Amino acid sequence: MIVVKVGGSAGIDYGAVCADIANLWKSGQKLVLVHGGSGETNRVAEALGHPPKFVTSPSGYTSRFTDRQTLEIFEMVYCGKINKGIVERLQRLGVNAVGLSGLDGRIFEGKHKDSVRSVEGGKVKVLRGDHTGTVEKVNTGLIELLLGAGYLPVLTPPAVSYEGVAINVDGDRAAAALAVALKASTMLLLSNVPGLLRDYPDEASLIRTIAASDVESYLEFAQDRMKKKVLGAAEAVKGGVGRVIFGDARAGEPVSAALAGAGTVVQ
Amino acid sequence: MIVVKVGGSAGIDYGAVCADIANLWKSGQKLVLVHGGSGETNRVAEALGHPPKFVTSPSGYTSRFTDRQTLEIFEMVYCGKINKGIVERLQRLGVNAVGLSGLDGRIFEGKHKDSVRSVEGGKVKVLRGDHTGTVEKVNTGLIELLLGAGYLPVLTPPAVSYEGVAINVDGDRAAAALAVALKASTMLLLSNVPGLLRDYPDEASLIRTIAASDVESYLEFAQDRMKKKVLGAAEAVKGGVGRVIFGDARAGEPVSAALAGAGTVVQ
Repeated sequence: MIVVKVGGSAGIDYGAVCADIANLWKSGQKLVLVHGGSGETNRVAEALGHPPKFVTSPSGYTSRFTDRQTLEIFEMVYCGKINKGIVERLQRLGVNAVGLSGLDGRIFEGKHKDSVRSVEGGKVKVLRGDHTGTVEKVNTGLIELLLGAGYLPVLTPPAVSYEGVAINVDGDRAAAALAVALKASTMLLLSNVPGLLRDYPDEASLIRTIAASDVESYLEFAQDRMKKKVLGAAEAVKGGVGRVIFGDARAGEPVSAALAGAGTVVQ
Repeated sequence: MIVVKVGGSAGIDYGAVCADIANLWKSGQKLVLVHGGSGETNRVAEALGHPPKFVTSPSGYTSRFTDRQTLEIFEMVYCGKINKGIVERLQRLGVNAVGLSGLDGRIFEGKHKDSVRSVEGGKVKVLRGDHTGTVEKVNTGLIELLLGAGYLPVLTPPAVSYEGVAINVDGDRAAAALAVALKASTMLLLSNVPGLLRDYPDEASLIRTIAASDVESYLEFAQDRMKKKVLGAAEAVKGGVGRVIFGDARAGEPVSAALAGAGTVVQ
């Protein structure tokens, strides 16, 4: 079993990712796909007159502040446009995909964090009304049910809180929780860079391998959204996933290439 | 088994519909929910600068002209905002709902109609690039799989063509195809009117009962979107569904009231 997470940033070639996944799936590879949609969510939010707001925590992580209106825009893009776009691509390729969010069947469940600490102008502020959280439980029963019946699950945030509230969760860490719960042998985190770069954005500075025991020490090289990927990788290998690979989803056969070791391999 | 279709027009009380469904579901009633989202799709399409375009066929049916960009907006609203909004409401009420479009697992399948005839200024024009169709096949296997495992399916257009292209289909007629395929005893078509009115919009002119053999002759009383409901009702009863009820989703206990015979009963 492998878990493939594909990001939502500019440059990602969904056509290439889906074609590669279709080939693997038809060859009998069991897999679950998780996707993002951050870039497109920003564009739609701007167009709808509710521009995105990002907060940076005191420990340096950047995340989207998700009020109720942002959550609805987030759902429109992630669960509507992108999820159904991927399902349609896979259906055209003859793969019977089923797209679900973490709300559906409580696939991704966690605590609702209503407030977030944000560093603004050197001061720490507390913002309330946030719809975020972290995945703590995965409904593997529903995923196994679908896989067993021949369907390829295509999963996306948001998750659901224990009280049944939709919460924005990081897709990379959701994929990590999923990979651990499914006892996946491999998790791929595909985005629009070749992997983790020692000297971002110099692609020649690609880090080829990281020892599983040593992942967190590589956080210092991770810029912006890559931080969550490194964190997700650390959580996955700690949870028993054999290897995590940061791969490039911009062209070629992104899934096969990453499986063959292209990118940054955490093992 | 009952199929409940709830529309997407102004005035519909989704809170009341979901609370009522949660009670029925917990009492052991097997059901599948289908929803619309037309009104909200129009608002979002306007806001995104791609206003809706409706065409009227020579036989008098009005439908949305669905180019690729409209299809994506349609998916954002139907599959994103509205579907996940309903799933979230049901999850908060303790119902383990699973929201799916007709693309997912090919639940709703049909022929892709790329061109549509439109009456404009008294002339019939042919418009190409349409993503529409009619549901011809329902994947009851996936629905039964979910129901059997205790999940309440919440379904929405679009459907998928035989070639794997997303197609906009009428929700009322999709619900009818579903009710027939599931051999449902009852189908409810809930909207923002009390039922079929002999003298629209005079609510005192509610038609209480229609003989199953006689449904199509009532098409003359149906205005706009109600036409598709009458057509859906005719298809459902022809296909063996015991009764179809046009009910009011604006307040109270819309599902229980309709099941008790409030509205227009086709039998």
